Amino acid sequence: MRVIVLNKALGSKQRDMIRKTAAEVKAEVYFFDSEKDIPENLLDTDVVYGFGVGLAQKSKSLKWLCVPSAGVDFMMRPGAFANENCLFTNSAGAYGVTIAEHIIAVSLMMMRRLTDFYAGSLKGEWGSPLPQKSLKDCKITVLGTGDIGCCFANRVKAFEPKQLIGVCRSGKCDCNAFDKILKVSELDAVLPESELLVMCLPSTPETNGILSRERMELLTDGAYVVNVGRGSAINEDALKEKLDSGKLAGAALDVFINEPLPTDSSLWTTKNLLITPHVAGNLTVEYTMNRNVEMFCEDLINFANGRPLVHLVDRKLGY
Amino acid sequence: MRVIVLNKALGSKQRDMIRKTAAEVKAEVYFFDSEKDIPENLLDTDVVYGFGVGLAQKSKSLKWLCVPSAGVDFMMRPGAFANENCLFTNSAGAYGVTIAEHIIAVSLMMMRRLTDFYAGSLKGEWGSPLPQKSLKDCKITVLGTGDIGCCFANRVKAFEPKQLIGVCRSGKCDCNAFDKILKVSELDAVLPESELLVMCLPSTPETNGILSRERMELLTDGAYVVNVGRGSAINEDALKEKLDSGKLAGAALDVFINEPLPTDSSLWTTKNLLITPHVAGNLTVEYTMNRNVEMFCEDLINFANGRPLVHLVDRKLGY
Repeated sequence: MRVIVLNKALGSKQRDMIRKTAAEVKAEVYFFDSEKDIPENLLDTDVVYGFGVGLAQKSKSLKWLCVPSAGVDFMMRPGAFANENCLFTNSAGAYGVTIAEHIIAVSLMMMRRLTDFYAGSLKGEWGSPLPQKSLKDCKITVLGTGDIGCCFANRVKAFEPKQLIGVCRSGKCDCNAFDKILKVSELDAVLPESELLVMCLPSTPETNGILSRERMELLTDGAYVVNVGRGSAINEDALKEKLDSGKLAGAALDVFINEPLPTDSSLWTTKNLLITPHVAGNLTVEYTMNRNVEMFCEDLINFANGRPLVHLVDRKLGY
Repeated sequence: MRVIVLNKALGSKQRDMIRKTAAEVKAEVYFFDSEKDIPENLLDTDVVYGFGVGLAQKSKSLKWLCVPSAGVDFMMRPGAFANENCLFTNSAGAYGVTIAEHIIAVSLMMMRRLTDFYAGSLKGEWGSPLPQKSLKDCKITVLGTGDIGCCFANRVKAFEPKQLIGVCRSGKCDCNAFDKILKVSELDAVLPESELLVMCLPSTPETNGILSRERMELLTDGAYVVNVGRGSAINEDALKEKLDSGKLAGAALDVFINEPLPTDSSLWTTKNLLITPHVAGNLTVEYTMNRNVEMFCEDLINFANGRPLVHLVDRKLGY
């Protein structure tokens, strides 16, 4: 069995984990930074762990593609896999910890006006006190209760919010930190009492434009919005208007409909909009990288032994 | 009994709380923004709740001064009270929640490079991924385990640090979030294993310059320092050098030896130094204001009934 790993961010510790597992299952393993570095004679591979988008599209012999991301929308188009029986796994479960930290950081930056104080400090200005908000006694709604939503809920619970509601497709979730779990069909009822709306949804036909202009109107005045899922979930034009008019107190976006955000985008100058360049799930965090590789190695053993893979993507649901 | 309240930040809800308690104990109560607004005929008052620094220095009839701050260093000089039997309380206990949120926010801003990403976004720049650190598996030391240190510990525990150690004068603290509580005399032993050092100390002769040049040397390379207590606790010149040289990965200071920080201070341009203008304990947060007033009202009832006050400052310890 041949395994090709495409990921320049991997450290020696993670490469050794993969080598050790490959040796156990008698697989040959090769490491490259990206697809273009793979020599001709190795293109015929059984397994790719990495963004092997081109290889999956061309190779009829590829049996399993594991991508190191949680999002898989870029592999959902027809023809993405030349071998229609190719197994497909992702790395959802590795990013909850680091993205939860991002959500709490940007929420507090907005609510505590740290963006204003920091912008002032860059100009050498000692600012005056500004009205601040707190996560304590805040009414928080989390749209998407997968690994990311639950890791966030477990952390933000310690800040003693007044209300912590999860919203997901099934209306079911095992995370005890939530006061209540609602179905997406019940979203409109909870928006008027949401002071902080956290969005951590995959990109699917159902989540496309889910935070519409009409739904933004339902949010309580002065609410904050954080999006770490996919940019397609938000009507960006409407968000810009609601921020510029002051209806929303702030928004923090790590994901956008077009990435990188074009230099001439009007979002750059939108009032109270905190923009980060899709870095919430940055792979440099040691824990994230280890979990990512552990999950792949777990399924490599399953694959070698003909057992079902644990981290399979549901291609019908799109995540 | 006459009570004068000096605090322009109080809302109508808090004023009503004070009026109600004053009525219960048959006290007359007057509200002013600051000392200079008090008319001559009211200067002879029994109680002041606010920064009545001038009044305390002049009035021999003042029986009780309650300041709305946690820090009391500005009242510790000889002659601060004309009436040497004047009771003196502070509002330690109201600020833990809001300052803990500040500490977590600025720690994550530094560790996740959000300062860099945000500075880039202000110039319309979509940044590249940068190496990030996580609170998960981080070794954290909290110097000062009063209300602020404990509120921080209770929150940061949810982020699953590798180690969470409290350090205080007595070596004793009831907060269960800490793995271990050490005495200040044991501080040097824990610094080499501290990746994030959080300082929330009052200004006293013992805490003056406690983070000396020598102690900064003991910190692990690439450590982060957060100070929300008093600026006097840190050797600012040494901190600047350790940041500029890269020995320390970052520092977030909300308090300084001289406040406001002078416009010509070299701290403004120190590498990886996050400066906020003494706003961690901003009184605009509803919970903070309510706790502040509740504690005063609790002691107003005690005072009226000749009982000991709960929130007395220990003038020997200086906090």
